Amino acid sequence: MWHQQEIHLPETPRGFHLITNDIARALPCLAECSQGLLHLQLMHTSASLTLNENSDPDVRHDLDAFLRRLVPEGLSYFRHTLEGPDDMPAHVASSLLGTQLCLAIRDGRLALGTWQGIWLGEHREHGGSRRILVTLTGC
Amino acid sequence: MWHQQEIHLPETPRGFHLITNDIARALPCLAECSQGLLHLQLMHTSASLTLNENSDPDVRHDLDAFLRRLVPEGLSYFRHTLEGPDDMPAHVASSLLGTQLCLAIRDGRLALGTWQGIWLGEHREHGGSRRILVTLTGC
Amino acid sequence: MWHQQEIHLPETPRGFHLITNDIARALPCLAECSQGLLHLQLMHTSASLTLNENSDPDVRHDLDAFLRRLVPEGLSYFRHTLEGPDDMPAHVASSLLGTQLCLAIRDGRLALGTWQGIWLGEHREHGGSRRILVTLTGC
Repeated sequence: MWHQQEIHLPETPRGFHLITNDIARALPCLAECSQGLLHLQLMHTSASLTLNENSDPDVRHDLDAFLRRLVPEGLSYFRHTLEGPDDMPAHVASSLLGTQLCLAIRDGRLALGTWQGIWLGEHREHGGSRRILVTLTGC
Repeated sequence: MWHQQEIHLPETPRGFHLITNDIARALPCLAECSQGLLHLQLMHTSASLTLNENSDPDVRHDLDAFLRRLVPEGLSYFRHTLEGPDDMPAHVASSLLGTQLCLAIRDGRLALGTWQGIWLGEHREHGGSRRILVTLTGC
Repeated sequence: MWHQQEIHLPETPRGFHLITNDIARALPCLAECSQGLLHLQLMHTSASLTLNENSDPDVRHDLDAFLRRLVPEGLSYFRHTLEGPDDMPAHVASSLLGTQLCLAIRDGRLALGTWQGIWLGEHREHGGSRRILVTLTGC
């Protein structure tokens, strides 16, 4: 089986956001898949997708705080500055974390570890809504 | 064809460990696949999977040494500290390197470059055993 | 359908290079795929593949400039130095950015966001030509 659809996420503040339930709810067809792969591709270059801890929101705060210091705004050697001081750091974070995930499906559900959740990294101050192109294949 | 199974890796010390042979040995069914994809999903949020150099162990030492300095323990702005000083740096490393790999299968074998190997990144001092959910699809 | 082939890229200078068209041109069979996944695996450990901005070349400059400062040559604790001062930093960049991408195919084409392009990260001064093993599956 193959299934493809877009998922639209509303604008979120800069930082990391747990979207596991948004993804699962948008895909009732997961229930028909006993084993397979779910591919998520974020269609943007200043945000990211990653798997990380699904419980304590402080983990999401801390990764964002780390990245803001790792790639601060206003670095003197940045040339791509016309779209605002948060834009080039957002491009860097997007490539460091990545914009696509491939996740296992087992028995009609996302097969995540006990503590794993899907995070959207919004790396711009006003990134707007974000689109994810989802491709499911399995049997 | 679809095949799914879990692979259990025993506890390893903090650092990077070459696991190419552990993966290949656990999957005799690879031999039946002439072309396909092997998806590896680590079921944890304080370890990582990456492809890197399979020969000189100094490369594994140096990447670990780099990460320990990039994300030191005890950063003053970290809030997620209850699980120990090595926990939040481990979550950061896990997202920077990633926890899933998708690898090409060709002629019944992992199609890796001459110098490529699969690395497990153990980012905790006592991470315990680790589970990888493997999904194989191909023909 | 399954299709697998190697794509050879000529040597490029250290830095990031937009290779979306090189990939698409090498794969006329994409046109036969209405929905699917295209897997790209770089067969090297001192270069990388990532998705990022496809328009302003300054974004490519800035990410390279950032990485050169993040992982400078000659770090005193690096042990893997026999292959030259640019080699270990290249291994680090390779794992931070990753060497494989899985991309959605829709209506016979790469389904990229408006601003997304495929980047090759060449992290060595003289990395030579680079090989990408491509695996396409879909219907």
